[in-house]
Amino acid sequence: MNLEVLNGLLRPKSIAVVGASDSEGKIGYTVVKNLLESGYEGDIYPINPKGGEIQGLKAYASVLDVPGDIDAAAMVVPAKFIPDVARECGQKGVRGLIVIASGFSEVGRDDLETEVVEIAHEFGMRVLGPNIVGILSNSDKCNASFAPFLPLEGKAALVSQSGALLIAMDASTYIRRVGFDKMISIGNMSDVNFADMVEWLDHDENTDCISLYVEGLRDGRRFMENARNAQKPIIALKSGTSAHGAAAAASHTGSLAGSGKIYDAAFDQAGVVMASNLNNLFDRTLALSLQPPMQGENLLIITNGGGVGVLATDSAERYGIPLHFAPEEVQEELKKHMPDFGSAKNPVDLTGMAGRDWYQDSVQYAFAHEWVDGLVILYCETAMTDPMDIARGIQAAVEASGVTDKPVSVSFVGGERSEEAMRWLVENGIPAYGEPDAAVNVIAALREYARNEDMAAHPFDPFTDVDEAAAREIIKKSRAASERGLTEVESKAIFEAYGMPVARTRLSETEEQAVELAEEIGYPVVMKIVSSDILHKSDAGGVKVDLNSADEVREAFTTIISNAKAYKEDADIQGVAVQHMAPWGTEVILGSVNDPTFGPTVMFGLGGIFVEILRDVTFRIAPVSPDQAFAMLSDINGAPILEGARGETPKDRNALAQLLSRYSQMVCDLADEIQETDANPVIVYEENEGAIIVDARIILKKVEQ
Amino acid sequence: MNLEVLNGLLRPKSIAVVGASDSEGKIGYTVVKNLLESGYEGDIYPINPKGGEIQGLKAYASVLDVPGDIDAAAMVVPAKFIPDVARECGQKGVRGLIVIASGFSEVGRDDLETEVVEIAHEFGMRVLGPNIVGILSNSDKCNASFAPFLPLEGKAALVSQSGALLIAMDASTYIRRVGFDKMISIGNMSDVNFADMVEWLDHDENTDCISLYVEGLRDGRRFMENARNAQKPIIALKSGTSAHGAAAAASHTGSLAGSGKIYDAAFDQAGVVMASNLNNLFDRTLALSLQPPMQGENLLIITNGGGVGVLATDSAERYGIPLHFAPEEVQEELKKHMPDFGSAKNPVDLTGMAGRDWYQDSVQYAFAHEWVDGLVILYCETAMTDPMDIARGIQAAVEASGVTDKPVSVSFVGGERSEEAMRWLVENGIPAYGEPDAAVNVIAALREYARNEDMAAHPFDPFTDVDEAAAREIIKKSRAASERGLTEVESKAIFEAYGMPVARTRLSETEEQAVELAEEIGYPVVMKIVSSDILHKSDAGGVKVDLNSADEVREAFTTIISNAKAYKEDADIQGVAVQHMAPWGTEVILGSVNDPTFGPTVMFGLGGIFVEILRDVTFRIAPVSPDQAFAMLSDINGAPILEGARGETPKDRNALAQLLSRYSQMVCDLADEIQETDANPVIVYEENEGAIIVDARIILKKVEQ
Repeated sequence: MNLEVLNGLLRPKSIAVVGASDSEGKIGYTVVKNLLESGYEGDIYPINPKGGEIQGLKAYASVLDVPGDIDAAAMVVPAKFIPDVARECGQKGVRGLIVIASGFSEVGRDDLETEVVEIAHEFGMRVLGPNIVGILSNSDKCNASFAPFLPLEGKAALVSQSGALLIAMDASTYIRRVGFDKMISIGNMSDVNFADMVEWLDHDENTDCISLYVEGLRDGRRFMENARNAQKPIIALKSGTSAHGAAAAASHTGSLAGSGKIYDAAFDQAGVVMASNLNNLFDRTLALSLQPPMQGENLLIITNGGGVGVLATDSAERYGIPLHFAPEEVQEELKKHMPDFGSAKNPVDLTGMAGRDWYQDSVQYAFAHEWVDGLVILYCETAMTDPMDIARGIQAAVEASGVTDKPVSVSFVGGERSEEAMRWLVENGIPAYGEPDAAVNVIAALREYARNEDMAAHPFDPFTDVDEAAAREIIKKSRAASERGLTEVESKAIFEAYGMPVARTRLSETEEQAVELAEEIGYPVVMKIVSSDILHKSDAGGVKVDLNSADEVREAFTTIISNAKAYKEDADIQGVAVQHMAPWGTEVILGSVNDPTFGPTVMFGLGGIFVEILRDVTFRIAPVSPDQAFAMLSDINGAPILEGARGETPKDRNALAQLLSRYSQMVCDLADEIQETDANPVIVYEENEGAIIVDARIILKKVEQ
Repeated sequence: MNLEVLNGLLRPKSIAVVGASDSEGKIGYTVVKNLLESGYEGDIYPINPKGGEIQGLKAYASVLDVPGDIDAAAMVVPAKFIPDVARECGQKGVRGLIVIASGFSEVGRDDLETEVVEIAHEFGMRVLGPNIVGILSNSDKCNASFAPFLPLEGKAALVSQSGALLIAMDASTYIRRVGFDKMISIGNMSDVNFADMVEWLDHDENTDCISLYVEGLRDGRRFMENARNAQKPIIALKSGTSAHGAAAAASHTGSLAGSGKIYDAAFDQAGVVMASNLNNLFDRTLALSLQPPMQGENLLIITNGGGVGVLATDSAERYGIPLHFAPEEVQEELKKHMPDFGSAKNPVDLTGMAGRDWYQDSVQYAFAHEWVDGLVILYCETAMTDPMDIARGIQAAVEASGVTDKPVSVSFVGGERSEEAMRWLVENGIPAYGEPDAAVNVIAALREYARNEDMAAHPFDPFTDVDEAAAREIIKKSRAASERGLTEVESKAIFEAYGMPVARTRLSETEEQAVELAEEIGYPVVMKIVSSDILHKSDAGGVKVDLNSADEVREAFTTIISNAKAYKEDADIQGVAVQHMAPWGTEVILGSVNDPTFGPTVMFGLGGIFVEILRDVTFRIAPVSPDQAFAMLSDINGAPILEGARGETPKDRNALAQLLSRYSQMVCDLADEIQETDANPVIVYEENEGAIIVDARIILKKVEQ
């Protein structure tokens, strides 16, 4: 990415407003007015066919008439004029187009949108929008938008896919006291998208935290890569998680994906922290922009009220950072700063008698102690103590501790005095909230940030003992032969080409061939109908298990074929698969979908009711290293089953992790061919005993006609 | 309960402050000052041994010296003096003691606390506290507390078990703009507890919503009864849900109970809505005090911004009220009040162009439409529209619709203008929040309220075909014979006495007796060791199944006895149980614990991994009607298994519901004897095929020595 071009677009030294107007109420009026009122120090060039003067500035009929350079052109003329204006901008040497105008893909005019981007790219320009509010930047004193004013100053940057929400959030920064340096409306994302914004903001000197409102990503892979490479915390509020997902999924795995699970996985893997609602986006943005990640599990809570202490304890458990007692020495020391009826456990209850000194001494000691990884300080307003005094004590203690690599957050419950003290704390770098739950939640965000960063640090090292060419050959042959898709036998051969253990399966077309294969594979065997017209093999009487002799195989062959014909008269029957019958173990299911946003993914779950009833599965964007795959195994509720719960032996999770990792490589290598896959069931045995894929399906992408 | 006495305590017409003082900083000073400053119109009698004058009021050496009647005495003298003062108050005819002083059970002085209550009851007085902040009431202009001022006026009443939290919440009412008529500190609950408060507040003319901060209840049954009888909405924030539960539970069921699940069940059954944190308590209190319950499932959302619309849709799903599209006719009508690019689906998107008229017309139409059960109205502040104007439109529409039996809530996202508009809305009876998620959450609260009320409306009609006497006789015999507790055979006999189907089980002491019993019961049979020293029968080789002949029974008897002796040499062996082997079906588990707060409960879950790994169980306070029991069956994640998921036949849920209901009667009738029970497994068959208890345990209460 050319950061310089984006600098021109997003931090322009000069702006043309194409469609500038002197008529109040028009957007072309508002944008010029907002630029003037925000104190923008670059050149402003109103563009209007009539020329003359607009809001005291000389207006030009065309950008081509402007004497100086133009970095960015804010476009507020009707959509149909934009291509022509864009071309003029290109000729003028403009770097970026801020296309505020609507009337493009959001109303079905994808053609117009594509045209504008093509023109822009022809001239090396980038396009923000269309259908946006504009851009706002405090450090550049630049309000090139129709949002009425710059947000409260701060060190975060908001990128929003919803313009209405951006305007509303802009106003609410003053109410919520969470500051932003920039707010950027990204609209239809015809060109500049979230991936670009993350990369550019990571280089922006005035941004400490990147905050996103996301309805849907374009180019999920590049977003993930840029997010993973970013040095700054990124937080996203993703809307649309309740959407009913891709309507008609072809496979089992597809139907389990929905829209939410894959986004969750992608954000986790990219080191992006998520927000649960608007308040939470503000709360977490504040903490992420002020505090470092929490590198360990030990959260200490210090309070002057038992009630809020217990509430915060509940919150800590809810948000995945349950409290532990501090070591004896810590408790001993803390006891010096509280009355007899206080408590030095966790939460540390200084009691309602606690004034500035007790807070200051205990915070300073605890924050510096190596056992403590993060600190939440709670205060209930009392008549006897002054919230501002407590706030000053806390800030002095944090500063005196010299600690800069652990997070701290604060909650004061009270009235206007507490509000004022919290505003002061925030100005002094300590995030503070009126709700104890929020103070704990943001520490959890800082913990999630550290965990996600750890997870993102496992690079995928491709397996070299795989035979991609063989896999492609099978697919090619199958496609050439028919449109019926891959059979089980073919699918399994592809899994085998990627070094995955499969229950050996061969296709027989006659009784005698079936017997030969069974003898070769070894008894007992399972036999199954192979027909792309029969998906539910058991229902069709197309499966026979535990066959131990040539006679049984012969009989099974005949029965299966006649059952299949009875089930569906005109079924196209390829034959009967003969497969070694794997000894029984624990059933799991692996799968993949080729997601339109993120590309190939892998899924893991336990078999049977865990998937059928409980939908207890976890997704990752592929590929995953064996370490990441191993971590997936603990993600599901049924994880104890593999770990060896209640006297059961532990299962071979290493073998499963290897299998998953190879699986993820397969779906990536063959992403151009494979749409969805299931390996169901996969049987996993006791530790060091391995795992085996018993049944498998690969659904190919449809060929574009 | 004598409401008149509580009126004297909680809405006193005259108050003595025992321990009143003229020294600033003393609580005895603060309470008198607060009474004066709050404008209290009753008589205030400062009591101080020195007499004279305190803060301009005549002081008395003793309450006995006061000329007039005293309704309530606020006590701020040290704990050790309280019994004597209480006796004087009794002699004076005081109605209630507001014991602000601490130093009682919270520091181990349960004796002193009991003494005070005994004295009070001797004179017909009630005791609030000890260890409390006091009472605050706007309608009585009475601040008899050391909290610095009365809360923002409103129609809710807060009862708090934490004093520090009450003071902090008092102050924060002004920040959050949620008003309360009363705030009552309940402290150690030596006498007046939550059950009393709910009953009394339900009769209080100035209270529309009862809001509770609960750390733990006393007398859970009476609380539930009073809550169920209350005509007003009740909301509770319960802290301590992360507590690790009753440490050493004797049974399986006990270990599954934890502290949270039983409280959740009790609140649901009592019609009490729960809050998840402090903000949520304020948010939901506001809505419950202003709006009626939501009687159906159809929530309609009207918005001017797609972004917040989608976020609210996600919230609706999260809170259990997923959106459906409105009928065509509704959509047709709504389309008249939006531009072409708006959407009349759900959410209804009026677009950013929507001004007062569109809001007003669409709200008025939608709110009055029979399909709509509840309405959430969202607004993103724009530069072009005036939030106050929108607010007035909404209020006018709601009023003009004439609808009073459906709830509406509002969220404006924006700055100070939106805040002001929302304050106005709240003053005009419409709850409004800065966060769309909150507006949806409170509608969910109003839906939960309606659902809980429905659930509470199923009375339990005791089964008459039960033999309590026979059950008691078995327990009596067992207790007389030994301290070994009930055997499986005895336990099952008790279940049978309550009309529950059990796999017939008899105790054999010899081989021949075993054979006789097997012939009588019918083959196949299962045989199991009966010894209170051997709990894990299978591990001891003490179980043999599928025995089909006299010979097999003989051999099994010998093997079981010798295995048991090998397993534990000195085991006290009662014999070998012979039991009919029930045909296989779906395994479920029923159980009960006798909870210290709520008494007998029942639990239901699916067997195997659902309980062992996933802890997927649900509790109810016993007894439960068959209808309530039937509803329990849908409460667990594994519910589809019983309903007949994925081609399985539905199971006999009616039989299970009957069984659960009888079970609940058993544990209630015998609550004085039974501590915990398990029926595990219970096998349930296809519809109309019944269910049978295969194994059962009853653990008796320990006898007090």
